[in-house]
Amino acid sequence: MFEHSEKARDLIARLSAFMDRHVYPAEHLYDEQVENGFHNRRPPVIAELKALAKAEGLWNLFLPGDHGAGLSNLDYAPLAEIMGRISWASEVFNCSAPDTGNMEVLALYGSPEQKKQWLEPLLAGEIRSAFSMTEPEVASSDATNIRCSIVRDGDEYVINGRKWFTSGAMSEDCKLLIVMGKTDPDNPNRHVQQSMILVPRDTPGVRIVRDMKVFGYDHAPVGHPEIVYENVRVPAANMLLGEGRGFEIAQGRLGPGRIHHCMRLIGCAQRALELMCQRAERRVAFGKPLGEQGSVREDIANSWVEIEQARLLTLRAAHKMDTEGNKAARDLIAAAKVATPRMAAAVIDRAIQVHGGAGVSQDTFLADAYAYARFMRIGDGPDQVHLAQLGRGLLKRYGA
Amino acid sequence: MFEHSEKARDLIARLSAFMDRHVYPAEHLYDEQVENGFHNRRPPVIAELKALAKAEGLWNLFLPGDHGAGLSNLDYAPLAEIMGRISWASEVFNCSAPDTGNMEVLALYGSPEQKKQWLEPLLAGEIRSAFSMTEPEVASSDATNIRCSIVRDGDEYVINGRKWFTSGAMSEDCKLLIVMGKTDPDNPNRHVQQSMILVPRDTPGVRIVRDMKVFGYDHAPVGHPEIVYENVRVPAANMLLGEGRGFEIAQGRLGPGRIHHCMRLIGCAQRALELMCQRAERRVAFGKPLGEQGSVREDIANSWVEIEQARLLTLRAAHKMDTEGNKAARDLIAAAKVATPRMAAAVIDRAIQVHGGAGVSQDTFLADAYAYARFMRIGDGPDQVHLAQLGRGLLKRYGA
Amino acid sequence: MFEHSEKARDLIARLSAFMDRHVYPAEHLYDEQVENGFHNRRPPVIAELKALAKAEGLWNLFLPGDHGAGLSNLDYAPLAEIMGRISWASEVFNCSAPDTGNMEVLALYGSPEQKKQWLEPLLAGEIRSAFSMTEPEVASSDATNIRCSIVRDGDEYVINGRKWFTSGAMSEDCKLLIVMGKTDPDNPNRHVQQSMILVPRDTPGVRIVRDMKVFGYDHAPVGHPEIVYENVRVPAANMLLGEGRGFEIAQGRLGPGRIHHCMRLIGCAQRALELMCQRAERRVAFGKPLGEQGSVREDIANSWVEIEQARLLTLRAAHKMDTEGNKAARDLIAAAKVATPRMAAAVIDRAIQVHGGAGVSQDTFLADAYAYARFMRIGDGPDQVHLAQLGRGLLKRYGA
Amino acid sequence: MFEHSEKARDLIARLSAFMDRHVYPAEHLYDEQVENGFHNRRPPVIAELKALAKAEGLWNLFLPGDHGAGLSNLDYAPLAEIMGRISWASEVFNCSAPDTGNMEVLALYGSPEQKKQWLEPLLAGEIRSAFSMTEPEVASSDATNIRCSIVRDGDEYVINGRKWFTSGAMSEDCKLLIVMGKTDPDNPNRHVQQSMILVPRDTPGVRIVRDMKVFGYDHAPVGHPEIVYENVRVPAANMLLGEGRGFEIAQGRLGPGRIHHCMRLIGCAQRALELMCQRAERRVAFGKPLGEQGSVREDIANSWVEIEQARLLTLRAAHKMDTEGNKAARDLIAAAKVATPRMAAAVIDRAIQVHGGAGVSQDTFLADAYAYARFMRIGDGPDQVHLAQLGRGLLKRYGA
Repeated sequence: MFEHSEKARDLIARLSAFMDRHVYPAEHLYDEQVENGFHNRRPPVIAELKALAKAEGLWNLFLPGDHGAGLSNLDYAPLAEIMGRISWASEVFNCSAPDTGNMEVLALYGSPEQKKQWLEPLLAGEIRSAFSMTEPEVASSDATNIRCSIVRDGDEYVINGRKWFTSGAMSEDCKLLIVMGKTDPDNPNRHVQQSMILVPRDTPGVRIVRDMKVFGYDHAPVGHPEIVYENVRVPAANMLLGEGRGFEIAQGRLGPGRIHHCMRLIGCAQRALELMCQRAERRVAFGKPLGEQGSVREDIANSWVEIEQARLLTLRAAHKMDTEGNKAARDLIAAAKVATPRMAAAVIDRAIQVHGGAGVSQDTFLADAYAYARFMRIGDGPDQVHLAQLGRGLLKRYGA
Repeated sequence: MFEHSEKARDLIARLSAFMDRHVYPAEHLYDEQVENGFHNRRPPVIAELKALAKAEGLWNLFLPGDHGAGLSNLDYAPLAEIMGRISWASEVFNCSAPDTGNMEVLALYGSPEQKKQWLEPLLAGEIRSAFSMTEPEVASSDATNIRCSIVRDGDEYVINGRKWFTSGAMSEDCKLLIVMGKTDPDNPNRHVQQSMILVPRDTPGVRIVRDMKVFGYDHAPVGHPEIVYENVRVPAANMLLGEGRGFEIAQGRLGPGRIHHCMRLIGCAQRALELMCQRAERRVAFGKPLGEQGSVREDIANSWVEIEQARLLTLRAAHKMDTEGNKAARDLIAAAKVATPRMAAAVIDRAIQVHGGAGVSQDTFLADAYAYARFMRIGDGPDQVHLAQLGRGLLKRYGA
Repeated sequence: MFEHSEKARDLIARLSAFMDRHVYPAEHLYDEQVENGFHNRRPPVIAELKALAKAEGLWNLFLPGDHGAGLSNLDYAPLAEIMGRISWASEVFNCSAPDTGNMEVLALYGSPEQKKQWLEPLLAGEIRSAFSMTEPEVASSDATNIRCSIVRDGDEYVINGRKWFTSGAMSEDCKLLIVMGKTDPDNPNRHVQQSMILVPRDTPGVRIVRDMKVFGYDHAPVGHPEIVYENVRVPAANMLLGEGRGFEIAQGRLGPGRIHHCMRLIGCAQRALELMCQRAERRVAFGKPLGEQGSVREDIANSWVEIEQARLLTLRAAHKMDTEGNKAARDLIAAAKVATPRMAAAVIDRAIQVHGGAGVSQDTFLADAYAYARFMRIGDGPDQVHLAQLGRGLLKRYGA
Repeated sequence: MFEHSEKARDLIARLSAFMDRHVYPAEHLYDEQVENGFHNRRPPVIAELKALAKAEGLWNLFLPGDHGAGLSNLDYAPLAEIMGRISWASEVFNCSAPDTGNMEVLALYGSPEQKKQWLEPLLAGEIRSAFSMTEPEVASSDATNIRCSIVRDGDEYVINGRKWFTSGAMSEDCKLLIVMGKTDPDNPNRHVQQSMILVPRDTPGVRIVRDMKVFGYDHAPVGHPEIVYENVRVPAANMLLGEGRGFEIAQGRLGPGRIHHCMRLIGCAQRALELMCQRAERRVAFGKPLGEQGSVREDIANSWVEIEQARLLTLRAAHKMDTEGNKAARDLIAAAKVATPRMAAAVIDRAIQVHGGAGVSQDTFLADAYAYARFMRIGDGPDQVHLAQLGRGLLKRYGA
């Protein structure tokens, strides 16, 4: 069995209690505040909950090493799952994407100055950040397609390009954009053409064009905007790790990021299952509770079976990352990345059906969670890309 | 083969040409107008297009008999499919739900006065209407659960109840609510407890509580509001057909309504297939167009096969309604109602995947169409209810 | 609607009555005779039933034109469906594959001598035949892969090759093999390399190596043997249509053949549905009939919906063949060929589940019918080949 | 991660080597011997391999405690998986069902005399045994339906009943039948009506009626016969554990039995995946290896993902059985029992498709493995029964 450490078990208990006491009761308040004046900045309820969580030491749980809680991926999994049950809860504990990945990148690859300027306020939860990689014009799952240019000009870099789905960047709290572009587009080695650079969001030339919606959701206050970078100039010291290291950083960044999404999606699916059971017990149609209908009961049972399988797969990937490194775990990460959003979408879809109209509406978390699960079959690489890579490896391993 | 009449073939050609010339080019304008000042009333572009369509005789195509185009269901099917390719296009031709069903009800069951007051402006496309049946507190797919009360008091009826997903009622253009409630809740015959009554939307006591969202979409300007009816008084003459006839009317109303949704969903799926092909030809990843990947090609082929099957099933149901009546066609209507939204959701989901981020966003019609298809697995009776009824009938027919 | 002619409606009634009176009651007797002495030749019950059917004019129903019943494909469909309900029933009416395809080929392309020698006894039901095309060593769905060689040597052709799944050739009643091979393997036009030639089964050098099984079934007495052709010599006059015409004949032969399989599979699925209903009504578990369990009821309803859709698609393909020719109907034939075996396998699988152990055993026709449906996802071209061809065409049509 | 003990890791290595050296090379020989003279008794190759395996200490690996290898369920899992790759390989290591379950029952509940007479020769691999529970007339998944009667008559019990799918009992090597019947059919406590009793296969009145086939397979030499028990008399001392304990024994017996089937099915699926890869690398169609087609590659990748998930679920169930007991693991056992055959059937089905005709034939292990996987959705309780039980529990746990 996957055994969690004593430290993790303690955190699970404390985190669950915190969620019950503080976060679930604030679910509606958050929506209200977002709708009323906090469409593009942090709602007060988040600030309050963050202060509470920080005070209780439920903070930066995702971060290995000294900067954060120092948990293994295996130990972080159940915590991320619990936070995943509410779409915005991770932020309360300073564990929300894309900040998590950005903090990891800065912790691993940032210069002392970069860390001081950006990592510290991020770790403190004072600012937020975004990761600006995907472009509308090209299939960005293939990083060699990236068109955004980063050109050295004296002591500066000049950035030109168009990005979208830069999650988080709609909010005024977002102060930092990590931008992926090409510094050496003609290099015959297609994996050293890319670089990553730090761009303060208020730099001249950074223009938020519009917010992209996901199934009708704008996901305010964070959003997923389209951004144009027009002759954006930043100091040369803003380059991360060095020119040509962008692909390498992205590879390192995406592994844990993908697995974190899986953990959160398992939380979504688990909550959907629980809501489905509650609804099935209480809702009566044609003279009996829905839960007495065989097909509803089978939906519930199948959902549990599928959740458990995806959870085990995710834990196994996490454990392999912990013990053998992210590279050795590549196949398992891809497997979890493919299996989990699919599972979550299927489970949530069944829960929606049992809820009828309420299931597709704002009265449950289900439709939004579905949109998240569905989006994750595209985000961080569409299923097809992961399956193709997995399949190629298996053909090599077994096909000889 | 399902042969369409010459009249229908002529209308298909004219409607397609009209769509190409006027409607597709206005797709973005509509969105802009809705966002800018026409959130709860008819955007000007709709008014203009309606005038044009009416002038060209592309009007009330859905309506059998003298009031409308006089087409059979079989002949109406390809027209509804074409209109279904844009979510709001049906209104241009005065063929949008729930007005279509409401006009049919008024044409069939309305008194001369009711027709004069409501049917005429509806047929003229001057006003819109809504159908207020579903209630948040009960499983409304079982009409015997309905709680809304309609009580006779002298020359008036007094209505008290809470409804939601009353599609269309957010708009100021909506002037009429057809409300389903119980006039005789204790009648041992559970199918004569219900009545339908006409309620002008501006009657005191009618309170729009909020708009229900569907996967984040508010579907402005029409919407799907929750409405409270509090001591709403209307003249006794507003009763439709007579007390206790509500269930009967609903049965008659829902058959054609369901088949119309199927036709429109086939249009959605067909358009999704076409977009998927275009994207697959143009988008390049890992060195070749997506369409050269076997799995994308199979997705395209399977989608075509599934669309064709759902289309044939829907046509067969329509033809049986035409030739043997709605009651004889009940099983086929249920079959189409179950098969088509499922098919459309699956086809659109594949198209979304091929489109990546654009597929879930506002840049294609796909995510909204998905929401429509998914909703129709719940609206007008969830799949489970139709399947249970179908299964019961089949067990009787074959199980003996 | 797909209207069948009066002639077809009359034949449907007579065929159904014949099945009820003579064929269903003989189902067990057939199995007994095959097991007891008729493993490789026609069981007496078949001979008797054939005589009866012929006398009643229920004969060669599949054959268009003067040689047979002269029905359109659309009219033949319901007849083939009825015969398809028992795996061997088609033979009773001289309508079983591969004789049907072979007779069509001989009627269309045979010389007067070839017709006299082979078509006449086939039409009379005196002999049977086989079609020897698939080879074990190569992917034969790509006809250009075929390796069997046919070499002219004076007044003879010499055939060398290895074939398998030559259905029907295990039986002593099989007197004729139509063999596909290459007469011009180096022709740059890869579609004129192939020829078809008539080989009497008792020609020296024809060696039945073994019978191939399909999921454990040997399908005695007909079988699907592997055959080695070793220096097999036949008169030059046995060539069909002319050298280099093999691919062309195969194309013409396979269209109707595929659609006939679809029709029979719909019969299998329909019978499985009926058995499922009967079982569900009679079998009691945990205190109530299986049919009262919601999930069983949904299985039944979904099966009916899926059967109806595949049936309509098959009829539409048949109708297009009748009215516009086999070539124009190519996409619809491919669609039916992909959709129907899949549907039949799914429906039969559900029926198996409702039957428990009996479902996988020899006590119902279900497991054998499953094997047939599953095989047809491979036979006459695997799904992938049809889907790839369909997808390519759709990309061209819509992708521009 | 699920860590296997050092002992288990050593056994895995030795077992794999034994399979490679001795068992795979004998695969065809086994089939030949069964077909030629060993249709109802142990083929010589089995006897030889058993002697070898026993000599190497690869023996009774399944059995916890002193009688066998003493492995935990978690440790046994990878071994059972390896043996499961060939349908008959488990017997070589004296680990084949139903002997495994029968030995466990005798070890746990047998009297010293019963152990001496039956357990010892079973442990030695000298004889085989069967478990006679399922009845053709009733839904035996509900044990309260059982009709077979066991009536005390002086010093004997008299057994009357009809059973089928008594796996193993066709073979002359099968000397013992463990029969489930009712000693107290009118007891108001429906779970103490049943008893289990030992019946030597050669007892007068035991009549093998016929062998049941599974998808055409007779699974000689073991078979799954239908057996009539007609006034079969056995000494009273043959009662297992005591009258009325049959249900209790069955419950205890079925848990490990189900999990063993899952382990073997994972082996089947894993082998199917490997064969699929090999075929995809070698088979060329339309100018390139099948493995270069995206859809084949996705099939391979998805299969790996699904296998891994079912394996983890099975290991988790096994681990819970080891650490908290079979009862506590009930839900996980049910989950694995539902998920694994479904997964195996799906994976094998894809492998069949990639193999074309060879995939359904006797030339690969695939079609037979499919039949096994499909059967296991029925055997030891159909999916529906497990899902209903699981669903009921989940509704209680989460629905309140």
